[in-house]
Amino acid sequence: MEEVNNKLVAIKGHINGAPAESDFEIKSETICLSLKANEVEVIVKNLYVSVDPYQLNRMKTQSSSQGTINFAAAISPGHAIDTYGVGRVVASGRADLEKGELVVGLLTWGEYTLAEPGRLLNKLDAMGHDLPHHVGALGFSGLTAYGGFYEVCKPKKGESVFVSAASGSVGSLVGQYAKLFGCRVVGCAGSQKKVDLLKEKLGFDDAFNYKEETDLKSALKRYFPDGMDIYFDNVGGKMLEAAVANMKQFGRVAVCGVISEYTGSGKRAALNMLDVVYKRITIQGFLAADFLKDYADFMKTTTDHLRTGKMHSLCDISHGVESVPSAFVGLFSGDNIGKKIVQIADQ
Amino acid sequence: MEEVNNKLVAIKGHINGAPAESDFEIKSETICLSLKANEVEVIVKNLYVSVDPYQLNRMKTQSSSQGTINFAAAISPGHAIDTYGVGRVVASGRADLEKGELVVGLLTWGEYTLAEPGRLLNKLDAMGHDLPHHVGALGFSGLTAYGGFYEVCKPKKGESVFVSAASGSVGSLVGQYAKLFGCRVVGCAGSQKKVDLLKEKLGFDDAFNYKEETDLKSALKRYFPDGMDIYFDNVGGKMLEAAVANMKQFGRVAVCGVISEYTGSGKRAALNMLDVVYKRITIQGFLAADFLKDYADFMKTTTDHLRTGKMHSLCDISHGVESVPSAFVGLFSGDNIGKKIVQIADQ
Repeated sequence: MEEVNNKLVAIKGHINGAPAESDFEIKSETICLSLKANEVEVIVKNLYVSVDPYQLNRMKTQSSSQGTINFAAAISPGHAIDTYGVGRVVASGRADLEKGELVVGLLTWGEYTLAEPGRLLNKLDAMGHDLPHHVGALGFSGLTAYGGFYEVCKPKKGESVFVSAASGSVGSLVGQYAKLFGCRVVGCAGSQKKVDLLKEKLGFDDAFNYKEETDLKSALKRYFPDGMDIYFDNVGGKMLEAAVANMKQFGRVAVCGVISEYTGSGKRAALNMLDVVYKRITIQGFLAADFLKDYADFMKTTTDHLRTGKMHSLCDISHGVESVPSAFVGLFSGDNIGKKIVQIADQ
Repeated sequence: MEEVNNKLVAIKGHINGAPAESDFEIKSETICLSLKANEVEVIVKNLYVSVDPYQLNRMKTQSSSQGTINFAAAISPGHAIDTYGVGRVVASGRADLEKGELVVGLLTWGEYTLAEPGRLLNKLDAMGHDLPHHVGALGFSGLTAYGGFYEVCKPKKGESVFVSAASGSVGSLVGQYAKLFGCRVVGCAGSQKKVDLLKEKLGFDDAFNYKEETDLKSALKRYFPDGMDIYFDNVGGKMLEAAVANMKQFGRVAVCGVISEYTGSGKRAALNMLDVVYKRITIQGFLAADFLKDYADFMKTTTDHLRTGKMHSLCDISHGVESVPSAFVGLFSGDNIGKKIVQIADQ
């Protein structure tokens, strides 16, 4: 029975504020590459794993996010951390998966995933796309952007759309879907480099660096003198407040994430509910898991757009399991451009 | 050409905080009971007029509410103040309205309404109901409750519903619609007398006095141990925060009013957007004017329920135009039970 060394990332204790690299440890354990009934159904060698801000909520002592769905389960100190990713089957007790095949699904921040029966794991047909794209634009980030934009924002052609964290994993895709759909799209990001990227590569109609704005409400008024129909919110806090103030009547706010609140609850948006009432604004939270029914449409549309060059999938890749903590911590200071991914091993 | 004295209520200046009776004046003017092309198409003797919290927003120097729809137009100091009400036609230049007929629509806080062409004014068929009910349960308060509950809350039988300001004009009706629809309904109000009324007369499953609760979040947890599906919000502020914390997955918050914010913006709800995302909560503002398409259904359903005694229309009536300021100011300290109406004249 072959044994191998498995390095994995764990939290040392619960993290209730902004994360630091010192909150994490790289553990090394010897694992046995053999299946065990009721415990290990498939063993996967991890290749590319996703690094997402929402995972911080799972690391807290307590969060309203925890327990609502599988992907949001609490993370325990010292234990393997689940994440979305692409890997290769090392051993399989499942009839539909063979050794050597590529899989996509719920892996771990580690070198190997020991998958219990029932774990989300599907055979991957790469369809000619680079594997990291299957973690980002063709993975849960893509489904989040697709479902959030079409199902929650309920866009009409010609409407105006504002996207925050627009160069991030989800925002960069939302803006491109919105442009292809026929909307006017403005994004904000945290550096001039990102702003240039939005305008020059991703086709946004306009973009701005929010860090250079002292009054977000006025900034949005400048980019949307007649107000906005749709706000795709990835950040919450002051930006959400400013957006609500600039919504048109019957405007829709899709709340995808609230990164400004993940690191503490002191920055909550104090929304002007008078605006919400009189402008009949709808504010709706959602999770990608709600859009699994749209998965086939999403994949067809998105693979076509990527193949024809109408959409760009931005991947920001670090290398080696040891780089996961810094990659994760960097999300909260905006280090990434596009989808943050760690390549654990060569294909 | 007959001349009469018309007493009317006006604001002395814009009101930007909590209103006081001294902010108002009773003006007396002589008006001519004759029609003038392009200026006065119908003259109405006002009988019952509505007194509503939202009118405070129209009295502010500036508010996001103003200008969005006719009913929300800014009110100018010294001028007549529009309101919903029932009156009797004194003179008419409209083919569909004759002298002596009852009308319902946009009147004023005064003894007479000089209606310009195009003003909302419809012949009233009282259908055997007392006239005040046509200002409340069968008027815009009723339509707000009906449309807000059915269209915005999108209820399912057996769901749990929480209503704030539950003994107020809209809340008292929402709770009754919800019970008749087959929901479990809990309301909150500001006195034991109101709480008793909700449980004993209006059929709420339970009710509590929010003034006796030090922790609204815990209070709601007590009444909804498994969370609530629907929150019909009339107050905003801390109650809205507590409700969001107690919503079930896919819960809906219908934001009808935010009385806690009308008197100043210092009490805005700082919502936990993490709850909104992970529980996929929808928060939606609305106005009765959005439900005019449902008007016929609303009238049929509600007149039937009132006639058969399945619903109760609570009217809290003051007498005489001079009582309008105190009636209005009293809304903000919860003096009213049910719909606040001022009877201006005998029928």
